Amino acid sequence: MRVLGVDPSLHITGYGVVERNGAGLRLLEGGTITPGKGSCLSERLAELQRGIEDVISTFRPDVMIVEEVFARTAYPRTAILMAHARGALVCAAAIAGLPVHDYAATAVKRALVGRGAATKDQVAAMVVQALKLRKPPAPADVTDALALAIAYLRRTDGR
Amino acid sequence: MRVLGVDPSLHITGYGVVERNGAGLRLLEGGTITPGKGSCLSERLAELQRGIEDVISTFRPDVMIVEEVFARTAYPRTAILMAHARGALVCAAAIAGLPVHDYAATAVKRALVGRGAATKDQVAAMVVQALKLRKPPAPADVTDALALAIAYLRRTDGR
Repeated sequence: MRVLGVDPSLHITGYGVVERNGAGLRLLEGGTITPGKGSCLSERLAELQRGIEDVISTFRPDVMIVEEVFARTAYPRTAILMAHARGALVCAAAIAGLPVHDYAATAVKRALVGRGAATKDQVAAMVVQALKLRKPPAPADVTDALALAIAYLRRTDGR
Repeated sequence: MRVLGVDPSLHITGYGVVERNGAGLRLLEGGTITPGKGSCLSERLAELQRGIEDVISTFRPDVMIVEEVFARTAYPRTAILMAHARGALVCAAAIAGLPVHDYAATAVKRALVGRGAATKDQVAAMVVQALKLRKPPAPADVTDALALAIAYLRRTDGR
């Protein structure tokens, strides 16, 4: 099973593709989509959508996992802008026939570290361990996207 | 000049295409895109995007006008869901090469009725008058979308 994790943002959207096979989890790809800074909102969204379409058509994941947006309503403007990005990204998944699930940040932390209040560093350390990497992927947006994918695989694994 | 007005919603997205020529304004099309009620968020967004792509490719508008979302932050959950719909819709415009502008509901009312606090009925009456219709288009989502298009045409007209 191949899982695409996506951490949506209008500035830097992180993504990561993780595969589960007999030997455990394997990192297939991690990267970012960074719309042009001078572009208007609609053009940024189009760049995000085209970018994730490329990732989907190249790696053919079975499912997309995105971070839940409602947790951020303490900052409505930020949440609303992020929701535009989510809209363009999950729309691309549906057009490609992928199911989409969303996880709250706390659910991801719980799946990886065992506590919903885990730190970013603790999550990064678990991403490194789960994928047998030497160091956390950079930028942090990629690590966050991979954490979403790993959280999904752990949950569906029954662990 | 052809203007596509869009009133985004995950349940009923209204749209309307208005043309300005020598004789004034003319209604080319008005309608709704209504994603399946049983569909999940990502599928609804894909249905909205496909629907608006059809309208764009059929009527070839020069610009898309959508309602501004920030005015609704008194209801963050509603605003966030609407922002997903907006994201999918304006993304389709950008992919088709259309510029996108957004107007606050108060700006639309001011452009049509002369007051930002105008009622829905007053706006509908001005849509009927501007497009020489017999009665307001139904449902109201279509009227709202046409009001956005008319507001843009009035503003760019210098009136």
